[in-house]
Amino acid sequence: MSNANDKTKQERYEYGMEVLSRIDGEVGQRVVESLADISPELGHQVAAWAFGDMYARPELAPRDRQLVTLGILTGLGGCEPQLEVHINASLNVGLTPTEITEALLHSAVYCGIPKALNATLVAKKVFAERGLLPVPATNR
Amino acid sequence: MSNANDKTKQERYEYGMEVLSRIDGEVGQRVVESLADISPELGHQVAAWAFGDMYARPELAPRDRQLVTLGILTGLGGCEPQLEVHINASLNVGLTPTEITEALLHSAVYCGIPKALNATLVAKKVFAERGLLPVPATNR
Amino acid sequence: MSNANDKTKQERYEYGMEVLSRIDGEVGQRVVESLADISPELGHQVAAWAFGDMYARPELAPRDRQLVTLGILTGLGGCEPQLEVHINASLNVGLTPTEITEALLHSAVYCGIPKALNATLVAKKVFAERGLLPVPATNR
Amino acid sequence: MSNANDKTKQERYEYGMEVLSRIDGEVGQRVVESLADISPELGHQVAAWAFGDMYARPELAPRDRQLVTLGILTGLGGCEPQLEVHINASLNVGLTPTEITEALLHSAVYCGIPKALNATLVAKKVFAERGLLPVPATNR
Amino acid sequence: MSNANDKTKQERYEYGMEVLSRIDGEVGQRVVESLADISPELGHQVAAWAFGDMYARPELAPRDRQLVTLGILTGLGGCEPQLEVHINASLNVGLTPTEITEALLHSAVYCGIPKALNATLVAKKVFAERGLLPVPATNR
Amino acid sequence: MSNANDKTKQERYEYGMEVLSRIDGEVGQRVVESLADISPELGHQVAAWAFGDMYARPELAPRDRQLVTLGILTGLGGCEPQLEVHINASLNVGLTPTEITEALLHSAVYCGIPKALNATLVAKKVFAERGLLPVPATNR
Repeated sequence: MSNANDKTKQERYEYGMEVLSRIDGEVGQRVVESLADISPELGHQVAAWAFGDMYARPELAPRDRQLVTLGILTGLGGCEPQLEVHINASLNVGLTPTEITEALLHSAVYCGIPKALNATLVAKKVFAERGLLPVPATNR
Repeated sequence: MSNANDKTKQERYEYGMEVLSRIDGEVGQRVVESLADISPELGHQVAAWAFGDMYARPELAPRDRQLVTLGILTGLGGCEPQLEVHINASLNVGLTPTEITEALLHSAVYCGIPKALNATLVAKKVFAERGLLPVPATNR
Repeated sequence: MSNANDKTKQERYEYGMEVLSRIDGEVGQRVVESLADISPELGHQVAAWAFGDMYARPELAPRDRQLVTLGILTGLGGCEPQLEVHINASLNVGLTPTEITEALLHSAVYCGIPKALNATLVAKKVFAERGLLPVPATNR
Repeated sequence: MSNANDKTKQERYEYGMEVLSRIDGEVGQRVVESLADISPELGHQVAAWAFGDMYARPELAPRDRQLVTLGILTGLGGCEPQLEVHINASLNVGLTPTEITEALLHSAVYCGIPKALNATLVAKKVFAERGLLPVPATNR
Repeated sequence: MSNANDKTKQERYEYGMEVLSRIDGEVGQRVVESLADISPELGHQVAAWAFGDMYARPELAPRDRQLVTLGILTGLGGCEPQLEVHINASLNVGLTPTEITEALLHSAVYCGIPKALNATLVAKKVFAERGLLPVPATNR
Repeated sequence: MSNANDKTKQERYEYGMEVLSRIDGEVGQRVVESLADISPELGHQVAAWAFGDMYARPELAPRDRQLVTLGILTGLGGCEPQLEVHINASLNVGLTPTEITEALLHSAVYCGIPKALNATLVAKKVFAERGLLPVPATNR
């Protein structure tokens, strides 16, 4: 195992925040900040573990990780705040609005129409904020 | 298999919207409309597949379908917007307020008190809007 | 509130077991028996509370309760042993094999194809044991 | 089985409300009151069954019951209103803010970061209302 | 909307089975066959709707759809039989064993270690059957 | 932040395995070993992160962590293999059989009877293996 992993706790946090900021942008940073007075250790784990140790691994591209994440969050339900962060992240790493709405449409097969609807309406909110509506219709 | 299913995509949509409107009323139509600029294909599937192909099948009466649907949505959790549509739909197809609250009470046994509470408070909102409160008490 | 509810703990258990036996038959009794050496109080609650206090309420017919229960258990997932008991119970209270499979088909819309498949294969096992296969095809 | 359980329905309700009020305080009472016009029987079950029959059992201390409950509600997701009641209850029965946030941090391992975040932000709301922020940092 | 969608029910089924066979291979066909005597209509919907109408849409590549599907099925839990089909499908459409195990590792962040473990052990079974173990270690 | 966290990846793994072995015993070690040929990194995360970084934190006692974990795993459903490990762990860190079954009984209130039953039958299996049946009845 390489020295790249031999970091202090502080270094792991800083590296994780760097990855998190690149992927999630400001909305992700605000999540960590919101934890400062209630559970700074959870903020540390989001940065150092979720992004620094896990997300940054080169075995899967960020775009692919976002497809998996959209699937999980849509399937779990009740994770609308995290879906909002991750639909932003999905755009940031190169998924197109059409690919995102198609991934959520696809999810209807596997976790049902209600959860697909909830996730799609989160995407509508994010796309509206970023001036990406209407999503170009496909003619089928 | 009968010719009744040999429809164009447009015909399937129109038939589905007809069924959806009959069951869900205006609140259901608004769901489909809200998808027009983000995922019209999801709107199509809600109408053509969920209502036209599935709900309209005669093997189970609408009233029975609503009981199943109330069970699923209550058990899944996090589907309050869909519960709102389907509590309206349940009233539209002939379930009484007492039967609906009893179905949600019953669900406490199988998915726990918290989800039963969440669903019951959605019913309270719908019943209030439709002037159906208080639900007549049963004396037991 | 009526005197019908003014029972001792033992009376509540006995009444619940009577209801449970009528609805679930032997498979339900075996669930309670299997708890005798690990959690007799859970067995008591299944009988006295779930069946005696809740299921026996006249506000919803057993057939309707089973439709709600099939919806919940299918939607939750991971409750195949309970689905087996409740598909038996559904037949016992008068739902036909066609209505049961239709209810599970219907659930695909609301909780996705995988959970509908899992529940349908439990129904296949129960129907096979009771000599109810094949379920009469509908010609649509 | 002792005579302590041989109560009328009304006595069971009153005893349950007494336990509920001691554990949950006013927020719990408001849940039962909110059910009066929609499902008084669900209110009865919350008091008489959930608190009177189950929570009051001496086999597990209230503090321990709250740890289990925090785990369940965090894992289920979509139960933020109940988490709010039960984070208040957790403080009422003696869990410290540090123990509560640590329990929710711990939950990230078993049900993932998103649900741990949702629950932690509910704790932040409750702690803010009760003047318990910031939670004292641990130096690790 | 194009004529490509103007098919009879039988044509929709045949087209869906063609797509399903290409993606899922024999294990997928066996799922549809297993439904013949219990719920042929569910088999029809798996083929005609899930694969013919939804999966075959060109807006998202099969490889991307599988990443979403792995995420959903891992997050839902209790869908091990469907995960087995879809880990096979994932290999069929070009995901490598390393990408699949990395997607499941990634899921631990979003739905917790237990569900990631369950899904990874399904992958182990599928990879063993296809002679793909051990998955090449990455040196980090 | 203290130097105690400034470890190499290998040191983090070894420390985590030490904690895991103390809590989970051999059944936990077998989980990590079972991942060696499919996802050694997931095995690393179970040891180094879940046990070394998270479980070992002194802010919550192992006994308390197990109560939270029993709640989460019971509530999620479909995690019977992990419940088996964690019911063993619960005994290892000092919870009594009565406290464990009471925690699972308690869970029926919050996530329903079916999941409480599934978890209780896992406890029955573990207790049988460890010669702990019957659980002493309480006289209420």
